[in-house]
Amino acid sequence: LLWLASVTDGVPDPAKRELLMREETFRQTGGGVALTAAEQKLDAHLRGLKEKEMAAAQFPPAMHFFKAKPLIQKSPIFKLLQQMPKGGALHVHSSSLVSVEWLVKNVTYRPHCYICFTWDNSVRFLFSDRQPFPRWDCFYWQLLETLRAKIGDAAGFDNSLIQHLTLVTVDPDGEYPSQDVVWEKFEKVFIATAGLITHAPVLREYLYKGLAELHLDNVMYLELRSGLSRTYELDGTVHDKAWILKTFQEVTKKFKAGHPDFLGARIIISVHRALEVPAVKAAVKEAIQLQKEFPDVVAGFDLVGREDSGRNLWYFREALSLPADLGVTLPYFFHAGETDSEGTDVDQNILDALLFNTTRIGHGYALAHHPLAKEMSRKRNVAVELCPISNQVLKLVSDLRNHPAAVLMSEGHPMVISSDDPSLFGTTGLSYDFYEAFVGIGGLKANLGTLKELSVNSIRYSSLPAHLKEAGYAMWKRKWDAFISAHS
Amino acid sequence: LLWLASVTDGVPDPAKRELLMREETFRQTGGGVALTAAEQKLDAHLRGLKEKEMAAAQFPPAMHFFKAKPLIQKSPIFKLLQQMPKGGALHVHSSSLVSVEWLVKNVTYRPHCYICFTWDNSVRFLFSDRQPFPRWDCFYWQLLETLRAKIGDAAGFDNSLIQHLTLVTVDPDGEYPSQDVVWEKFEKVFIATAGLITHAPVLREYLYKGLAELHLDNVMYLELRSGLSRTYELDGTVHDKAWILKTFQEVTKKFKAGHPDFLGARIIISVHRALEVPAVKAAVKEAIQLQKEFPDVVAGFDLVGREDSGRNLWYFREALSLPADLGVTLPYFFHAGETDSEGTDVDQNILDALLFNTTRIGHGYALAHHPLAKEMSRKRNVAVELCPISNQVLKLVSDLRNHPAAVLMSEGHPMVISSDDPSLFGTTGLSYDFYEAFVGIGGLKANLGTLKELSVNSIRYSSLPAHLKEAGYAMWKRKWDAFISAHS
Ligand SMILES: [Zn+2]
Ligand SMILES: [Zn+2]
Repeated sequence: LLWLASVTDGVPDPAKRELLMREETFRQTGGGVALTAAEQKLDAHLRGLKEKEMAAAQFPPAMHFFKAKPLIQKSPIFKLLQQMPKGGALHVHSSSLVSVEWLVKNVTYRPHCYICFTWDNSVRFLFSDRQPFPRWDCFYWQLLETLRAKIGDAAGFDNSLIQHLTLVTVDPDGEYPSQDVVWEKFEKVFIATAGLITHAPVLREYLYKGLAELHLDNVMYLELRSGLSRTYELDGTVHDKAWILKTFQEVTKKFKAGHPDFLGARIIISVHRALEVPAVKAAVKEAIQLQKEFPDVVAGFDLVGREDSGRNLWYFREALSLPADLGVTLPYFFHAGETDSEGTDVDQNILDALLFNTTRIGHGYALAHHPLAKEMSRKRNVAVELCPISNQVLKLVSDLRNHPAAVLMSEGHPMVISSDDPSLFGTTGLSYDFYEAFVGIGGLKANLGTLKELSVNSIRYSSLPAHLKEAGYAMWKRKWDAFISAHS
Repeated sequence: LLWLASVTDGVPDPAKRELLMREETFRQTGGGVALTAAEQKLDAHLRGLKEKEMAAAQFPPAMHFFKAKPLIQKSPIFKLLQQMPKGGALHVHSSSLVSVEWLVKNVTYRPHCYICFTWDNSVRFLFSDRQPFPRWDCFYWQLLETLRAKIGDAAGFDNSLIQHLTLVTVDPDGEYPSQDVVWEKFEKVFIATAGLITHAPVLREYLYKGLAELHLDNVMYLELRSGLSRTYELDGTVHDKAWILKTFQEVTKKFKAGHPDFLGARIIISVHRALEVPAVKAAVKEAIQLQKEFPDVVAGFDLVGREDSGRNLWYFREALSLPADLGVTLPYFFHAGETDSEGTDVDQNILDALLFNTTRIGHGYALAHHPLAKEMSRKRNVAVELCPISNQVLKLVSDLRNHPAAVLMSEGHPMVISSDDPSLFGTTGLSYDFYEAFVGIGGLKANLGTLKELSVNSIRYSSLPAHLKEAGYAMWKRKWDAFISAHS
């Protein structure tokens, strides 16, 4: 393309201009996708809809998602995206997989559910067949059934529980003035949820429900990041990690049996980056072992928790080199670059993730500012897991048009769309995040080819073995063709 | 660098990692600048200061400038930047060159100054030796002297005038909820200022004062965008554009005589993009003529006004091809890509600016999202004029860490820093914008080399002929060396 740089005489040739514009469009995500006549028809329709939304007084991607959500729900583009087969969700955390409504309205109404309010205004739950012992953070456990009867206003009480289990609020800017504040609440919610979903019978239903919500949104595959926290029975018996993986396997199998158009689900074992090196070392060893036992389920390993306040990947290098040292493979799916602090040690995580041969990059918010890491990631086909709503709610960016992934999309960088913590942000499935990526980050130039590529990418860059990718693609293609013929 | 992409065995070599990190640093703006021992000392000091500011509870670049300004003024980095020789200011508009305080406290106190309040709550000024005639937008002109005497509270009144002549406010988010609102006020301010600064005796002092403010901030050169609006005398006589250019030439000469360390000033003739093609055609012709008459003063031509609501460059292609058609040269300095509407016709301005051989790109906010245009701009050495505070106040981006120029800086894209409309934003000189670019956009990895390159760039990418660039660089270098020895 060097000829493009040649100095013109100042009177641009319209044909050459047209060519340059087309070449630039060609480079974007999905720019090389050839659209059928029917797809072109739908594409033109989508463009018209998008022009309208971009010209409206309120542009949802420029607003905080909690305020934009009702507008998005009314958007005809969003409704189309809900119908669209979106492939797989590759970046979702197990503690926030299922809508909070279900947890509160269904799970907390079950017998033997105890609640406790902590000194720092948080809640804990516990299922138990006897009065639970006081714990350091919880002195007084009450049976929820009894408490609800005492309070009377069940609807109001349930609403207050929902507030404890999600970040959603009518005043996000007031309630979360800084990243520190929103992350604090974020970690609190995880702890509050734990008592509910680590109860063995609940977990089983919870996972099933999670797959069902994705399926309802036309998502056919899941890679779930999970710490495999100990699960407990009513009598206090606890189950180990193998039990959870087996349960996950069974639930997935059962769901697939009832929904033959669902491809499957796998787990990325995750540990918190607050741990010390020896603990992470042990976790890596355990993950290697569990992957050997459950090769169909365990996709690999990740470190989670806020990067800005946690330890960086290089700090854990001894632990992360373990598989190579032992001569075994353990695919990594590192969170990296979920930060806006440029040039700090945390900002370095992206390069280190690549040096440790990460299979994908979780978020990679900072990748666009790292030209070398960006090149490496592209050449090695390491996809970025873009979670727009998460980045906005966790205050990396307010107007999503300024999300640095706009740069990556314009260059066709390997990328998939995911939801990170749907229940915390008040989303289900992937349609909300697809909306933000397609309308906000992609802008008017993102088209149906972009959507098609992003969907296919979620199978292409999944951890599935080649033959399952092929089967998954064929399954997706049938759905896609049906979607196109229904909407063009 | 292909070897970098080779898959490692999963145990990164620390030496190789170090090399990659250095290579990435090398690519950034100023990454290739070799620092002397004294410079390295100052650089280490700067890094320490920056780490402190990034760790503080309030981080100025993440805040609206109107709120961040008092914090910035206290910053030791800012104080250093004020002392630093910053080269030239290449993107400043003539209507907003000089602090509003001077206009109100000095100019409006002169005799024969009339004021009029319009129906839409704006003001007009006029110097006249008799009672001015009513105009369509102004029915009742009052002598300011009389009005002030009547009102009594001069301080309060002057403050209200200042409000009319700047965008500064304590509540920017409340007062300017959208780009439309802030741009409306923006255009209003320009009209309000016009009556003051197009009065011939005022203009002369105004230009001198403008150079003095830049000089005080250690800026030694100016390229001023000006529409060369008609200037008037007390008796109503008007002067043509040649008169203004001559006046500008005289004022610059006088200022240089009193300040031998000032390099000079030139004008980029600008017309509003609201005009029709024939009017722009006429303006281009006139600019060609004026450049012939004042080759030392006239640097070239630009189209100004809000891109999102104005006409795009391609619309004016017939007018912009005129110089080439006539076989003459008229350098262009186009505003382009001052938008966050990706993929629209406006977004196309960047590519078109390049096709019309623009010498620099004003703002280029959207450039990072245009991989092809970015390549062309880089290969042709077309620098971007980055005006961070302007982009924030005009609501393209709230947290400056998300400014897309972070991508350009990480790649060492040709770039200069400027202030756009200092008086409207409440800044003088370039130090505020340098602060935002250095601390916010550049992050921790931007260093003294970055600052040095940005300063030199303003001479390198100026419109000056080669011999003056050399002289300018030598002058800058002496100042730089003095700055370093004073601060290391
Ligand atoms: Zn995550
Ligand atoms: Zn401008």
